[in-house]
Amino acid sequence: MNTFGNIFKLTIFGESHGPAIGVVIDGCPAGIPLSEKAFYADLQRRKAGTKGTTTRTETDNPEIISGVFNGHTSGSPITIIFRNKDIDSKSYNRFKVHPRPGHADFVAEKKYKGFQDYRGGGHFSGRLTLGLVAAGVIAKKLVPEIKITASLLEIGGNTNIDESIDQAITRQNSVGGLIECCATNIPAGLGEPFFNSVESLISHLAFSVPGIKAIEFGAGFKAAKMTGSNFNDVIINEEGKTRTNHSGGINGGITNGNDLIFRVAVRPTASIRQPQTTYNFETGRIEELTIDGRHDICIALRVPVIIEAITAIVISDLQMTNKKF
Amino acid sequence: MNTFGNIFKLTIFGESHGPAIGVVIDGCPAGIPLSEKAFYADLQRRKAGTKGTTTRTETDNPEIISGVFNGHTSGSPITIIFRNKDIDSKSYNRFKVHPRPGHADFVAEKKYKGFQDYRGGGHFSGRLTLGLVAAGVIAKKLVPEIKITASLLEIGGNTNIDESIDQAITRQNSVGGLIECCATNIPAGLGEPFFNSVESLISHLAFSVPGIKAIEFGAGFKAAKMTGSNFNDVIINEEGKTRTNHSGGINGGITNGNDLIFRVAVRPTASIRQPQTTYNFETGRIEELTIDGRHDICIALRVPVIIEAITAIVISDLQMTNKKF
Amino acid sequence: MNTFGNIFKLTIFGESHGPAIGVVIDGCPAGIPLSEKAFYADLQRRKAGTKGTTTRTETDNPEIISGVFNGHTSGSPITIIFRNKDIDSKSYNRFKVHPRPGHADFVAEKKYKGFQDYRGGGHFSGRLTLGLVAAGVIAKKLVPEIKITASLLEIGGNTNIDESIDQAITRQNSVGGLIECCATNIPAGLGEPFFNSVESLISHLAFSVPGIKAIEFGAGFKAAKMTGSNFNDVIINEEGKTRTNHSGGINGGITNGNDLIFRVAVRPTASIRQPQTTYNFETGRIEELTIDGRHDICIALRVPVIIEAITAIVISDLQMTNKKF
Amino acid sequence: MNTFGNIFKLTIFGESHGPAIGVVIDGCPAGIPLSEKAFYADLQRRKAGTKGTTTRTETDNPEIISGVFNGHTSGSPITIIFRNKDIDSKSYNRFKVHPRPGHADFVAEKKYKGFQDYRGGGHFSGRLTLGLVAAGVIAKKLVPEIKITASLLEIGGNTNIDESIDQAITRQNSVGGLIECCATNIPAGLGEPFFNSVESLISHLAFSVPGIKAIEFGAGFKAAKMTGSNFNDVIINEEGKTRTNHSGGINGGITNGNDLIFRVAVRPTASIRQPQTTYNFETGRIEELTIDGRHDICIALRVPVIIEAITAIVISDLQMTNKKF
Repeated sequence: MNTFGNIFKLTIFGESHGPAIGVVIDGCPAGIPLSEKAFYADLQRRKAGTKGTTTRTETDNPEIISGVFNGHTSGSPITIIFRNKDIDSKSYNRFKVHPRPGHADFVAEKKYKGFQDYRGGGHFSGRLTLGLVAAGVIAKKLVPEIKITASLLEIGGNTNIDESIDQAITRQNSVGGLIECCATNIPAGLGEPFFNSVESLISHLAFSVPGIKAIEFGAGFKAAKMTGSNFNDVIINEEGKTRTNHSGGINGGITNGNDLIFRVAVRPTASIRQPQTTYNFETGRIEELTIDGRHDICIALRVPVIIEAITAIVISDLQMTNKKF
Repeated sequence: MNTFGNIFKLTIFGESHGPAIGVVIDGCPAGIPLSEKAFYADLQRRKAGTKGTTTRTETDNPEIISGVFNGHTSGSPITIIFRNKDIDSKSYNRFKVHPRPGHADFVAEKKYKGFQDYRGGGHFSGRLTLGLVAAGVIAKKLVPEIKITASLLEIGGNTNIDESIDQAITRQNSVGGLIECCATNIPAGLGEPFFNSVESLISHLAFSVPGIKAIEFGAGFKAAKMTGSNFNDVIINEEGKTRTNHSGGINGGITNGNDLIFRVAVRPTASIRQPQTTYNFETGRIEELTIDGRHDICIALRVPVIIEAITAIVISDLQMTNKKF
Repeated sequence: MNTFGNIFKLTIFGESHGPAIGVVIDGCPAGIPLSEKAFYADLQRRKAGTKGTTTRTETDNPEIISGVFNGHTSGSPITIIFRNKDIDSKSYNRFKVHPRPGHADFVAEKKYKGFQDYRGGGHFSGRLTLGLVAAGVIAKKLVPEIKITASLLEIGGNTNIDESIDQAITRQNSVGGLIECCATNIPAGLGEPFFNSVESLISHLAFSVPGIKAIEFGAGFKAAKMTGSNFNDVIINEEGKTRTNHSGGINGGITNGNDLIFRVAVRPTASIRQPQTTYNFETGRIEELTIDGRHDICIALRVPVIIEAITAIVISDLQMTNKKF
Repeated sequence: MNTFGNIFKLTIFGESHGPAIGVVIDGCPAGIPLSEKAFYADLQRRKAGTKGTTTRTETDNPEIISGVFNGHTSGSPITIIFRNKDIDSKSYNRFKVHPRPGHADFVAEKKYKGFQDYRGGGHFSGRLTLGLVAAGVIAKKLVPEIKITASLLEIGGNTNIDESIDQAITRQNSVGGLIECCATNIPAGLGEPFFNSVESLISHLAFSVPGIKAIEFGAGFKAAKMTGSNFNDVIINEEGKTRTNHSGGINGGITNGNDLIFRVAVRPTASIRQPQTTYNFETGRIEELTIDGRHDICIALRVPVIIEAITAIVISDLQMTNKKF
C-alpha cells in the first residue's frame, strides 16, 4: 500500500508527530552522485515560511541512512529520513470524537478503529510528501536531459495570486489553487497502451498527494467540448512534432515526443481559522469547532515541487523500463 | 504492463484484427454464479449500432475458457475471450508512414520499431475494453450492495446530446463528451492514504480507457477556485453523512461513506470523415490524409459502461483487501 | 496469484478438463521471430507416450491468439492457448468425498469450498505446465547465448533409469526422480542480494511445478556437512572462473559467471494402479480406493524441459531488469 | 528488488557499516500490541556471543520510527531501524581487487561497477537479516495460534554439534549446518496451486537469507528415491490428518492441515582464519589472502530464528490473503 513503482520503486513511511518520516528508494542505478545537499533546493521550494503558508518552522533535514557511499549511489536501496521535532500534540485528541470537516479524522477512525496516530494528521500528513520530493530529486538526476517545471497558474481562480492570499488571510479562510506541469525534451515511446499509460501513472501518483482533486492532460476537460478536427494534433515533422498539443504529449498512453503537459487542482486547506460546525460523535450533536494553530492558507503554494517530483519519478521509471528493449 | 490489481487482478491481451482479445481475471472468490449470459447486458451497452456510433457490426461474443465450473466461479483465474471477425486490414498499412493525427500510429511505430500489429489499432484498440467490461460485470457481483452508475452529461459541451451528434454527422466531424459516475451505498474505510488512494486507483484505470483526457473527483477543478469554508463538507450524523459532497466521497484517499462521485472527459474520436493533413514520413511532406471506413462519431456514447466497470473493479479489489483486517 | 515476473511476466490459466489452458506472456520485446512451430520441439519433450508415461494421448497444440504479427512478436502480450480434448470426467466426482492420497483433492475442497473444478485435477493439473514450457521457449530466444540443459540423473534412486521404470510397472507403483539443470555462458551480475536472489526466483518457479519437493544449488545439502576451506570456490582468472563450483554459480544471490547448477527432486506420481486406503468423508471411515485410468509411472520423465523453461524465464527476466542500468 | 509480500509486505535496506540497517513492514493491521521490547527475545537468539559465533559485539538495538502509537500498531507502515556502530572499515578496501573466495566481493564489483559499499559486506551483509527477524516477530503475533520452531539438526554432518564447532576452531576453519523448521496447528487451505505455492513463497524467502544453499519439504530429496505407495500420505480423519507426512504438510501448493516441515542447508562461513589463495585482479595472479577479524565459525548457529521469521512472514501473508474470501 505504501510502495509504488516498477523498477524505480518508492516506499514511504512515518507519521507527522512520530520520531521520523521517510522514504526508501529502490532500483536506483549505482554511480549517481548524491549527498544530502542535493535535496536542499527542492526541499526549500516545498517549505513553508512565505506569505500564505504556515508560520510553523518545520525541520526538513534529510538524513541519508542507506544506499549512498563515497558520495555516490551504491545500487542498494536509498533510505532518507526526516526527523520530526518534538511537538505538543495533545490538542489533536479531541478530533477523534469531533472530526474536522475536510480532514481524514473520520475515515481514519473508521479504518484503523481508533488505533491511528491522530497527532498532526499522523500518516495522512502532507509532511509525508517530503519523501516524494526527495525521491523526485534523485529521479530528476536519472533523466537530466528532461526539463520538468510545475508552477501555479491561479489561486482561488485568480491569476493575481498575491491578492487571493491577502483576501483569504483577511477572511480567516483558506483557498485552492491550480498548477500546471510541463516536461520538455521527453523522448517518444515511454509508457504503455493500457494500465501503464503515462496518464495512468502520473495521475496515480498525483492523487497520492494530499489535496489534489482533479487532473487533466493537454486540452483536458475542454476535449469533451471539442470536435475531432479541432482536437487532433497534426504531425508536422520527422520528430513527430505536432502543430497543436491538445493531447498533452501523449497518444495511446505513450509519449509522442512533444511536451508533456498536465494541470492539477488543489483544494483549499481543510483547516481554517474561522469557526466551523460539524458532528460530535460523543454528544451526538452538530457543534461548533475551532481549530487552533498555524496552518497554510493555501497548500497549493507548496505543491508545484511535489508535482515535479512525481512527474520525474514516473518518467524515470518508464525510461528504465524501456531501456530493457 | 498489462496486469492491474492487488487481489482482484486483471490481465488483458489481444489485438483488434488478431484472432481474439480477452482478459484473465485472477483473485475472484469461488462460488459466484457466472455464465456467458451474465455479460450480455453490459456488453450491449458498450456496443455500437445507435446513432453516433460506428455502423460496423462487431462480434462481442464472450467465451469463458477457464475459471467457471458448474455455473459458478471455481476460484481459479477466469479467462474470457472475444474472437475477432475476419476483416480486410490492408488499408491500415499506409498509416505506418502517414500516421493519422490523434491516433497512436506514430508512437506505436516508435515504440515497437515497426513490429506492432497496426491493423485496426492493434493492441491499442478500444476493442480491448471488452475485457474491462467483462471484468466489471464480475466485480459488480462482488459488491452487490453498491450501486454504480455512469452516464453522459454532455456531448460537445451540449446537454442536448442528440443535437450535438446530428451536427457532427452533418459536418463529417467527431465530438467529445463528459461522463459522470456515481457509486452509492459504499462503505467508509476503503482505500489508503497515499499510493492506493481511491482517486489514485480509479484514475489509474480510467486513463487506461482510450480517449480519456481528464478526471475530477467531487468539486474537482472547481476546488481550485474555492475557499475552505465553502469546500469543507460538514459531517451531520453518526454515519458520517456530509451536508455537501465537494470531496466526492473521499477524504485522505479513503471512502467516507458518502457517494463516490467523479467525472471524466472523453476526447472526440480521432478518425473523422473530413480530410486532414499530416506528416508523411516517406515523402517528408505534410500531405492530405483521408480515413475511410465507418467510425464512431462520439466514442463517449459507449464509454459509460466502461467507467462503471473500472469503478467496480477498484472497489471490489479494495473491499477484498480490506477484509483481511 | 497466477502472475509471476518483474518485466517478463507470465499469467497462467485453465483447468485440465475445461475448454483450454494457456498463458499470457507480457513484457516480451517486439521483433522476436515466433510462430507455433517454435514450440513443437520443447512441447514434444514434455509429452507423454514413451515408457513410464501415460498412454493417454493429449492434444498439446499451441494456438497463438495475441502478440504475434507477421511472424514476429509485436511487443504486446503474447497469449498461447492449448485446447483440451473432450474427456469423460465423471469418475473424478467421487474424489471430493474420498480424496486420493498425495493429490490436492482434499485441500481443493477445503480452499474452494466445493466449487473447484475437480475434473482431472482442474487448475492443479500438471497440464498447466504447458504454459510454462511455451513461455520458456520464448525466454530461451531472449537469451540465445545462454545454454540451459536439464536432465534426469536418477529414477527411484537408480541411475539405470530403464530398470527403475520396469520395476515400477511390474509392481503397479510409481516412482520419483532427480533432475539436474545447468546453464552455461551466463553473464556475471544477474540477480539481487536478497528477495530477488537467483536462488529465490528459480526456487519460487521450480516449486510452482507440481511434484517438486526439494531444490539445491551447487553443493546444496552437502554444503551443510562441509568446511569453509572445502566449500569456498577459489577464483582463478580475470573472468571470475572458479576452480570448484560449490556455490552453483551464485554468490550473494548474484550470478558469478560460472555455470549455474541446481538439482530438484520430483516425487513419485500420486496416482498408482495398486489399491490404496484413505479417509472417506461421506462414510467417516478409512476405505480402499482404486484409481482407474492411465497415469504416468514417473512424472520426472517429463519434467526436465519444464525446469529448463523456468530457468530461462528467470534468467530472461533478470537480464531485462539488469539492462536498465 | 528489496520489497517482498502481497499484503504483509517487507522492504529492507541498509549496509553493514553505513548509518543503519532496517525494515519497513507494510500491511500490518492496526491494534496489535507492539513495543521495542517485543523484539528482544528473537534478536537475542540471532545474536553472536556463544561458542562458534563471532566475538564482535554488535549493537542490535531496534528503534521503531513509524507505525506504532500508544503501544499498538497504528495500521501505517512500521519502520524499524538498527543503527550500526562506528567501525574501522579500511581493511575491506583490498577485497575489491583481491576478492575473498565464497564472498560476494567479485559479483558486487561486477554488478555495481565499483560503487558498492564494500565495507563489512555492505548491503550483502547478514546484518540485514535483523530486519527479517523483526518482521518475523510481528508476523508471529498475527498468527498466534500457529507454533513455528526451527532448530539445528547437524553441524558439519555431526549431530554432536559441540564437537563439530571445537574441531573447526582448532583447524581455523568454518563449518556448515542443517536446520529443520516445523509449523504446527496451521490451518488447511493456505497457499495457491502455482506461483504462490507455500513451497514457492517459503523457498523464495529462505534463499534470501545469506548462506542457504538448499531446501526440502517433507521427504524432500528422499522423495526422488521413493515409490508412490511409500510416499503418498494416507488421510485418516475428518481434519485431513495423514498417517505419514512425506509431503511436509503441503499438497498442490496448499497447506493440508498437517505440520508444515522443511529443512535448509547453511553453507560454512566464507571467512576463515587459515590463509587461502585467490585471484588478484591488480597483479593478475592467484595469490595468498589472509582475512583478519573475528568471524562466525558457523553461521548456521544463528540462522534458526531467521528461518522461523521467514516462515511466519509467509504464513501471515497467506492468512491475510485468504481472509478476503
